[in-house]
Amino acid sequence: MKHPSPRRFSAGVALLTALAGPLASVALAQAPSPLPTPAAPSSLPTASVKPVQYTLANGMTLIVQPDRRAPTAVQMLWVRVGSVDEVDGTSGVAHVLEHMMFKGTATLKPGEFSRRVAALGGRENAFTTRDYTGYYQQIPAERLEEAMKLESDRFAHNQWPDDEFKRELEVVKEERRMRTEDQPRALLGEQQNAAVFMASPYHRPVVGWMSDLDAMTPQDARAFFQRWYVPANAAVVVAGDVDPERVRALAEKYYGGIPARAVPERKPRTEPTQRGIRRIEFKAPAEQAYVSLAFRVPQMEQLDSPTDAWALVVLSAVLDGYTGSRLDRTLTQGPGRVADSVGAGYGFAGRGPQLFQLVGVPAAGQTTETVEAALRAQVARIAREGVGAAELARVKTQWVASETYKRDSVMAQARELGSNWVQGLPLDASERIVQHLLAVTPEQVQAVAGRYFGDDQLTVATLRPLPIDPKARRGRGFAAPQGEMR
Amino acid sequence: MKHPSPRRFSAGVALLTALAGPLASVALAQAPSPLPTPAAPSSLPTASVKPVQYTLANGMTLIVQPDRRAPTAVQMLWVRVGSVDEVDGTSGVAHVLEHMMFKGTATLKPGEFSRRVAALGGRENAFTTRDYTGYYQQIPAERLEEAMKLESDRFAHNQWPDDEFKRELEVVKEERRMRTEDQPRALLGEQQNAAVFMASPYHRPVVGWMSDLDAMTPQDARAFFQRWYVPANAAVVVAGDVDPERVRALAEKYYGGIPARAVPERKPRTEPTQRGIRRIEFKAPAEQAYVSLAFRVPQMEQLDSPTDAWALVVLSAVLDGYTGSRLDRTLTQGPGRVADSVGAGYGFAGRGPQLFQLVGVPAAGQTTETVEAALRAQVARIAREGVGAAELARVKTQWVASETYKRDSVMAQARELGSNWVQGLPLDASERIVQHLLAVTPEQVQAVAGRYFGDDQLTVATLRPLPIDPKARRGRGFAAPQGEMR
Repeated sequence: MKHPSPRRFSAGVALLTALAGPLASVALAQAPSPLPTPAAPSSLPTASVKPVQYTLANGMTLIVQPDRRAPTAVQMLWVRVGSVDEVDGTSGVAHVLEHMMFKGTATLKPGEFSRRVAALGGRENAFTTRDYTGYYQQIPAERLEEAMKLESDRFAHNQWPDDEFKRELEVVKEERRMRTEDQPRALLGEQQNAAVFMASPYHRPVVGWMSDLDAMTPQDARAFFQRWYVPANAAVVVAGDVDPERVRALAEKYYGGIPARAVPERKPRTEPTQRGIRRIEFKAPAEQAYVSLAFRVPQMEQLDSPTDAWALVVLSAVLDGYTGSRLDRTLTQGPGRVADSVGAGYGFAGRGPQLFQLVGVPAAGQTTETVEAALRAQVARIAREGVGAAELARVKTQWVASETYKRDSVMAQARELGSNWVQGLPLDASERIVQHLLAVTPEQVQAVAGRYFGDDQLTVATLRPLPIDPKARRGRGFAAPQGEMR
Repeated sequence: MKHPSPRRFSAGVALLTALAGPLASVALAQAPSPLPTPAAPSSLPTASVKPVQYTLANGMTLIVQPDRRAPTAVQMLWVRVGSVDEVDGTSGVAHVLEHMMFKGTATLKPGEFSRRVAALGGRENAFTTRDYTGYYQQIPAERLEEAMKLESDRFAHNQWPDDEFKRELEVVKEERRMRTEDQPRALLGEQQNAAVFMASPYHRPVVGWMSDLDAMTPQDARAFFQRWYVPANAAVVVAGDVDPERVRALAEKYYGGIPARAVPERKPRTEPTQRGIRRIEFKAPAEQAYVSLAFRVPQMEQLDSPTDAWALVVLSAVLDGYTGSRLDRTLTQGPGRVADSVGAGYGFAGRGPQLFQLVGVPAAGQTTETVEAALRAQVARIAREGVGAAELARVKTQWVASETYKRDSVMAQARELGSNWVQGLPLDASERIVQHLLAVTPEQVQAVAGRYFGDDQLTVATLRPLPIDPKARRGRGFAAPQGEMR
């Protein structure tokens, strides 16, 4: 969507291009200042009221999280469809359709949806990622019914004239220009994803290749809507000052009548095993060079199956989970300073294969090669020497704190419940995930640092800066994660 | 197809993975021994009888090339559909469907088609490439009508039970194992294509990703057949001891009654400009290392538009167009020997973007890096010093000779007419192409050698050999070009 509302969910991921999944932001969370080193907490504070989940007769999911602290509510409609479900030739259509969902229904004119939400005193937006598409409104709790009526109407009856599509497609293309074409690191990230993922649909950018946007037709968007916007492929999440049974009755009333249809078959499109290093360079006008290392690593497949994913999350947090964590301290500070900024992130879970990324911007006089070597040296050092108990306690404290902070926002709670549903995770997934993370030992972190960071599953993408032409169009865009499009 | 018939059209391209188009084989033609250096010929000998082209009322094309030297005829059915028309998730379906075309019609049982062709005294096969799919029978000329009846029947009415599909899919998967999974260079070439082409459908292998084959359903093949096997997307080419008007009457009788249907819209899927070198390594059990350099270069778009494509064809022939040509002489022979074998090839034209490739196998004690540098040095030398008139005359003589040799085979003539039709070229395209090539000057060759062989449009793929496990399944396959599947 084009609305200039706050980019609430993307804080912290601007450096990284391939993060997704419930813990994406954990790995990159930045506390305002170094924390003291408390003993690691052993568990999360328990939420006062548990969420509840229902399945409507047509297969649609309803999740309600009561939170009575303020007279506000959030409705989020989640559709388990994202760029991962596109086929090439129409890349970007999931996101284009997200825009078109604001353009009318059988009874609403283009733009009327947003005007009505505003009239309710609400704010709203939408988002599209590789894995899912979401729509939300935050409204005074007593206006929930009207928001549900509006949302169910467009889920069932989205429609618009071809002219409206043509205009909005130009908006999307401009979005691509601002966020990708004019952003060398975004372009580089797009190319890196394309090089890492050969058979997986994560190969393609969420916003779509420009050639596919140029050739997109109204019918492409309508067909995608018909195909994927079916009740059994969607969940309504309501969080806030609401009563679950009352919300359930409203959901039955507004969503329950939408006819059931089959969710289309999905092809697995498994990524073949990578068996050797890949390097891509990209030259573009830019102030600074940049290097991004993407390692193919295991991910969480099922919540309680043994996996190295937990230890990899911890590793990413030890490297870059707080101000003054290893990468920051050793690469951007002090006498050994080689980088202006660095980062680490791990996708952890998602509908497609996940990556562990290390990124860096060389300091003046340094090269991407130096930064690349320094980043890898930090992982190698952990593989060799392990991590300290204090370090581990610090990152664990951070998670528990960030989980607690989430409880403070109905929006964040709805987001978490929805993204867990997309991954097929249960209602208590976040708590169980934190339990798994809290159980990770220093030895496990050391082991994964030694196991997954060789050359053979690595793709290195390097931005080689060209001189910036002062006349060229630049600087009007803003850095944005490729992982999510509004 | 699985039939073990001669691989007539693939001679010479085994080293290269991305060649296509009418001149693919020219660039790699290998004469049995060095030729003397005659003056360059100025034109081709004129064919005695010109081909004729008709369009049936339903949009189907008919091309007839009379050649009365022997009482034989070839029928080739060309469908302008190949892996380029697939979308991901069902990669390989064009080739799977080609197999299924032998599995029955409304009136023929599985396998009956081939039995009937054999009963006519015919031989037959089929082929699938990125750009097209073709089927052919060579029969005694007086049996042409029966062949046309059979071919038109399966074009209009191909059908088979699901069981037959499941069995044949296993055949195709075994084909992939033999020709790709068990062939390190084929796997490397597959990865190189995937790295070079990010948005273009040339990204995907013709045979399909194994994951897509594993998940392919009978309905995928039927839908592809319904979508693309329409009269206006096909051409029947008949060459041999035939009368054009009589063939036309037969075509009207057998193909003319197939109902017209629209050819589906095709998305352009334009490949973005490459702006930096890409390198991929691939480790696999192999006897020898191998390196392949793929440069993005211009290609022929329209027959008589000015283009550097002509000079690039000449460059590839100067490098590798005859025994003792530059690459061979300087890299595999004499005191400067660094490679056991080398090659150059240029795609020239096709439905997607084309490449100029240099490949080599290091000699004992040499590395891929040495071979890579030596290959590029030969191009750089031409950019610096140009090519000699004698060298140019030699490659031009070769083309004229190979064009003349083609006339000796009705099969080769039909193949050429069909592949030109796929590219949208006119009946006299081959002659006009040779005229363009004969007009190329040494200065033009020198210029293109200097223009297109920098780093920014280059993708280097390197095979790093691992020890061969004597117990592993290997050696039962054979090297095959990725460009064409039977």
